[in-house]
Amino acid sequence: MEQSKLKELLNSMSRKEKIGQLFQIMGHMLSDDAVLTGPLKDLGLSDEDLALCGTILGLGSSGGAQLKAIQEKYMENHPHHIPLIFMVDVIHGYKTIYPMPLAMGATFSPELLKECSKMAARESAAAGLHVTFSPMVDLVRDARWGRVVESTGEDVYLNKVMAESTVQGYQGDDLKAEDTLAACVKHFAGYGAAEAGRDYNTVELSEHTLEEYYMPAYKAAIDAGAAMVMTSFNTIDGIPTTVNKRLMRDVLREQMGFKGVLISDFAAIREAVMHGVCADHRESAEMALKAGCDIDMMAGDYSRHLSELIDEGRVSEELLDESVMRILQLKNDLGLFENPFKGLDLVKEKELCLCDEHKELAKKAARESFVLLKNEGSLPVKKGKKIACIGPYTDRKKLLSSWAIMGDEGPVETVKEVGERLDGYQLSFHEGCQILPEGTKMPGFVQLEEIDYNADRTRAMEEDALKAAKEADEVLLFMGEHFLQSGEAASRTDITIPKNQVRLLEKICELNDNVSLVLFTGRPLALTDICDKVKSILVVWMPGTMGAAAIWDVLTGKYAPSGKLPMSFPYNVGQVPIHYDILQTGRPLTPEDAGERFVSKYLDAPNEALYPFGHGLTYTDFSISPITLSSDKLSGDGEITAEVVVKNLGSAKGTETLQLYIHDIAASVARPIKQLKDFKKITLEAGEEGKVSFRITEPMLRFVRADYTVGSEKGHFNLFIGNSSATENKASFELI
Amino acid sequence: MEQSKLKELLNSMSRKEKIGQLFQIMGHMLSDDAVLTGPLKDLGLSDEDLALCGTILGLGSSGGAQLKAIQEKYMENHPHHIPLIFMVDVIHGYKTIYPMPLAMGATFSPELLKECSKMAARESAAAGLHVTFSPMVDLVRDARWGRVVESTGEDVYLNKVMAESTVQGYQGDDLKAEDTLAACVKHFAGYGAAEAGRDYNTVELSEHTLEEYYMPAYKAAIDAGAAMVMTSFNTIDGIPTTVNKRLMRDVLREQMGFKGVLISDFAAIREAVMHGVCADHRESAEMALKAGCDIDMMAGDYSRHLSELIDEGRVSEELLDESVMRILQLKNDLGLFENPFKGLDLVKEKELCLCDEHKELAKKAARESFVLLKNEGSLPVKKGKKIACIGPYTDRKKLLSSWAIMGDEGPVETVKEVGERLDGYQLSFHEGCQILPEGTKMPGFVQLEEIDYNADRTRAMEEDALKAAKEADEVLLFMGEHFLQSGEAASRTDITIPKNQVRLLEKICELNDNVSLVLFTGRPLALTDICDKVKSILVVWMPGTMGAAAIWDVLTGKYAPSGKLPMSFPYNVGQVPIHYDILQTGRPLTPEDAGERFVSKYLDAPNEALYPFGHGLTYTDFSISPITLSSDKLSGDGEITAEVVVKNLGSAKGTETLQLYIHDIAASVARPIKQLKDFKKITLEAGEEGKVSFRITEPMLRFVRADYTVGSEKGHFNLFIGNSSATENKASFELI
Repeated sequence: MEQSKLKELLNSMSRKEKIGQLFQIMGHMLSDDAVLTGPLKDLGLSDEDLALCGTILGLGSSGGAQLKAIQEKYMENHPHHIPLIFMVDVIHGYKTIYPMPLAMGATFSPELLKECSKMAARESAAAGLHVTFSPMVDLVRDARWGRVVESTGEDVYLNKVMAESTVQGYQGDDLKAEDTLAACVKHFAGYGAAEAGRDYNTVELSEHTLEEYYMPAYKAAIDAGAAMVMTSFNTIDGIPTTVNKRLMRDVLREQMGFKGVLISDFAAIREAVMHGVCADHRESAEMALKAGCDIDMMAGDYSRHLSELIDEGRVSEELLDESVMRILQLKNDLGLFENPFKGLDLVKEKELCLCDEHKELAKKAARESFVLLKNEGSLPVKKGKKIACIGPYTDRKKLLSSWAIMGDEGPVETVKEVGERLDGYQLSFHEGCQILPEGTKMPGFVQLEEIDYNADRTRAMEEDALKAAKEADEVLLFMGEHFLQSGEAASRTDITIPKNQVRLLEKICELNDNVSLVLFTGRPLALTDICDKVKSILVVWMPGTMGAAAIWDVLTGKYAPSGKLPMSFPYNVGQVPIHYDILQTGRPLTPEDAGERFVSKYLDAPNEALYPFGHGLTYTDFSISPITLSSDKLSGDGEITAEVVVKNLGSAKGTETLQLYIHDIAASVARPIKQLKDFKKITLEAGEEGKVSFRITEPMLRFVRADYTVGSEKGHFNLFIGNSSATENKASFELI
Repeated sequence: MEQSKLKELLNSMSRKEKIGQLFQIMGHMLSDDAVLTGPLKDLGLSDEDLALCGTILGLGSSGGAQLKAIQEKYMENHPHHIPLIFMVDVIHGYKTIYPMPLAMGATFSPELLKECSKMAARESAAAGLHVTFSPMVDLVRDARWGRVVESTGEDVYLNKVMAESTVQGYQGDDLKAEDTLAACVKHFAGYGAAEAGRDYNTVELSEHTLEEYYMPAYKAAIDAGAAMVMTSFNTIDGIPTTVNKRLMRDVLREQMGFKGVLISDFAAIREAVMHGVCADHRESAEMALKAGCDIDMMAGDYSRHLSELIDEGRVSEELLDESVMRILQLKNDLGLFENPFKGLDLVKEKELCLCDEHKELAKKAARESFVLLKNEGSLPVKKGKKIACIGPYTDRKKLLSSWAIMGDEGPVETVKEVGERLDGYQLSFHEGCQILPEGTKMPGFVQLEEIDYNADRTRAMEEDALKAAKEADEVLLFMGEHFLQSGEAASRTDITIPKNQVRLLEKICELNDNVSLVLFTGRPLALTDICDKVKSILVVWMPGTMGAAAIWDVLTGKYAPSGKLPMSFPYNVGQVPIHYDILQTGRPLTPEDAGERFVSKYLDAPNEALYPFGHGLTYTDFSISPITLSSDKLSGDGEITAEVVVKNLGSAKGTETLQLYIHDIAASVARPIKQLKDFKKITLEAGEEGKVSFRITEPMLRFVRADYTVGSEKGHFNLFIGNSSATENKASFELI
């Protein structure tokens, strides 16, 4: 539709219709198929209000036929026959579920995430969906927060490139295309910094930190063309983001240049009253619209109050029109006026969803996301050995994460099912213990009760497992978090493996000294108490539809692990928030100062994570040479090259991810001791060596300066190239 | 000295002399008696630089004779015979040590803290000291940070009144008086919010939180006339406070109107280089002076570089003069030009230090600081019962805290020594276990090794204790943190009682079901694992010189405990930072929502502290009536009265602290769910009842609004009156 026609359409709409465009309801209010988040209360709206809603949330798991029927019926009834947009949480896949986003961060492969996002878009678009509430690019430094599962981690640069590639993957070049989705970047802004890791909690960030560390990933997604932005549940400066005019008008729209549709998170306009910045829902509606929040997801505040607010002159009709126009524009960009069933193709839907090609991609992504934290030679497993596979994840289909709500477990194979098909391995399978203690109250559990280890069922499982462990040459433990222990509203104060599993692990390690742990988790866990008890630890996250096959590919050595931690695994929960890109402080703890008291440290724990950002082993070892710099002076428009020689020292082929970090030694504001600026993978045969080089240019050195302008500052820099953020392989140069 | 003469003096000084005034060195560089903090390195200064230093730090523990000799010698050598100022860390007493500041917070008695501060000033002044680096008023919400020992806690209002009364106590009406000290409020600003509780770490606070919650106590101290302010070790907006011009010039000097002397914390100017905001010490000197930091404590950067910076025109001589003048002014305010030995009186020093009156006051303060967390009837202890006193604190003199560096243990009596003098009690004493595991590396310990419970010494102690516990009617455990586990650079990731002590506690509780815990600690501890095992818990902090006598006064019921927690005792370390005055969030966890998932909570722990701010029991129970309001409407210039009737329901006399909290339900920024606004104590005989009333006026409702002006906003408020921050005794009113 031409712009002038769009404007005409707007002008022809009644106010009620216009307000309807701003209202988003759950699909289940039209059908009976949806998943709920947030306190849904009686919205107190008329059937007409509901019928005029401009967009729909949460439908899609039943597939395209349902969406087609709804769109048809809706448009028929709508005064101007304006089509609906169907928006959905396709977070890591629609029907073919690839690994959870934090795991995708571990691939250090924006290309792979782009491919996976394309796949998700292909499947969803064929089912008639238009927008996905993804990517979530919130920077995360606190593993207590359950929603780290949905982020790509703690690093600014990694989050940026992952944000970009996800948006490109979903959107392609053309929102009108049959196989694309519009992306909605979330949660603007700073949601990842919830105080004490408690979801929905207050956020404390200085203006500088917010701009320098938290904003870049949102900005990258917006610059990549993300059609939508979602507000966050937290306050910024004491004001909930959804009604925070400064944040949304000045920062998002003006500074960051966002032109698309801003949507509230679930009922977030309503929640401004609970936050205590609005006396009632009339006021929250007023503040939200003034802040520029276009779509009211599920609160109903706009539908109930905007008209009255306009009548009273508290809100101008122009402000309403501005928001409506942005939504009509998005519908137009999606081509819905020409084809309200854009992409929807029931045949293609059936062909694409969970097709072999997609499953193969999901398996590849899973394999590349696994992180080998330690390996004392017990992996890969050997043929001819008697291997006991023990743990609650041995025969479990729930490998998808709590945020794979469009997917289903049906097609998921378990570790046992795949394992039993393997040729030449002597495997036995034993549940060993429950995933959570008997009696845990799901899903809203506050688990304060004692564990009953003597329940009959529990004891029998344990006995079976211990017997198997004793008789086996090797043990593979398949253990970890329940998928509902991470995700939204899944904060934990204790970030260890559930205690009943740890008890079993300890007993097994006493019986068998060849134990490997395959760890399922939605977040970094504190593994200090168990890491020395097992020989190897392979983190497999929530690996998705093809998780089990991918796991066996890696365990058997068919595929060597290559993932790198996108988020530090802390020594203990008392260290969090923790991240590698810390400021140096005035009294840094250096190896020479280890015995000193008055340095920045803990009395009872190291400052460093147990396994830091960027760490990850494979089935061979690499040497990395000292850095060769093409010059130790960099001019503003020039570039220098930093090169290392990487050699595969082992007897197996392997892939290493070289990471380039930079430290701006002195600047107008304190800069992190290391900051990731680039990374590159190299795959080498046994004994082979290769060169990896990085270009260093002035834009890589820019930051938010003391005066809040962005730019670089002349002076000395350290650069590091290594295979984790702990590298000390260093060179220095000067920006002149 | 008249102002004009002071100006004349300044004009007659050489630049070297002037720069000398800005330099502070440790007394041990003149003598051999001092305690060090911070990385002291070779300062690279000439003897002349040292000889011209204007102020001295850290002397005093040897008493007045030494200071007299130094002052005499110094003035003789000084070109203008300008006297030195002796500054010192008199944190909670000079020779008579009263409880650590957090314990003084627990008294909820600004009057008592004022008396104690007066006492500290009397003793120190008689010894020839002039300035104390106290009060430390940093708001603290994270018990991992060891320096919470030095704060009065997590509450804005309590910190304010305590800051005020401390300054008034030290300074009196006249800095020239023989018995006063100048106060130095610290650490400006926000030091208490060190990230992840690690000392010296980065601080993340929004501008709004900094102003609304962290600044008021500094402001209160400055308004009370504090002569000096000390910078903090942290960055604000990425810039170390000591060189942060915006913070020091715009906020401290202009907005807050501070006219006195600003001193860096120990070597903090130097540390700006480590922070990475200065390339070298020339630059740190320049930035610090420009930021308005008058005294360079121990860095030497001013002495080495200022003259050169002035020659080069990078710093103006006027800026130097401005700082010198402030120091000369302080010397004049202290009357040192008239009497360089102001207050110093060797006879009085001897009479005052540790005199009976002072010891009595220290004992009173200790008694009032103890907090009875729980009591299932085991306290007070009864005559005629066989009582086993067990634990590493039974016969320990180290009751002073790590910050009582002028005090000494000599005059401290142990629990055992006092206990053995008690009439009519059958007490036996048993160390039971060491305070820390064998082999702990003091003082800079990073304790990662396993505990060896089988060391001979350890086993024998334990056997003796268990035998005694088994045979006793009642057990009193005297356990807790080592005094070096709190204080500066004493952060802990695990905030429990040392594990070897917990083990003994558990064994004893299996043998005897009448166990009371007397808990020595410098910080809130996580007591969840042990609180149900013992019948009573009495927190006695680091109680000071008279700690043991005070403890027996309370244990025997001679004095009923009345302290209230100034800082929440968390459920576990995974909850921190935690504080009672939280924002509500958009999805608060209410009792009705307990089973819901999508509310702000943890899956595995409550949101609330185990023992919240304001909690504290005594030996009787009180009922508190519903609130009677004189009116439910408050006008801007009016007042209303809120009244409750308190009744002593028990059979013993007791004191209750009634606490008034207010919640501004809707405002332009989110307001805490409760905020302490006033408190009052009432002492009632058994069965007696009394009224407690509070005045509510508009100024109590002011806050930093969304536009950063300070004021109240009309609307509805809840007020609470109860005996802890958990109270639900509520009334509502409207500001009209």
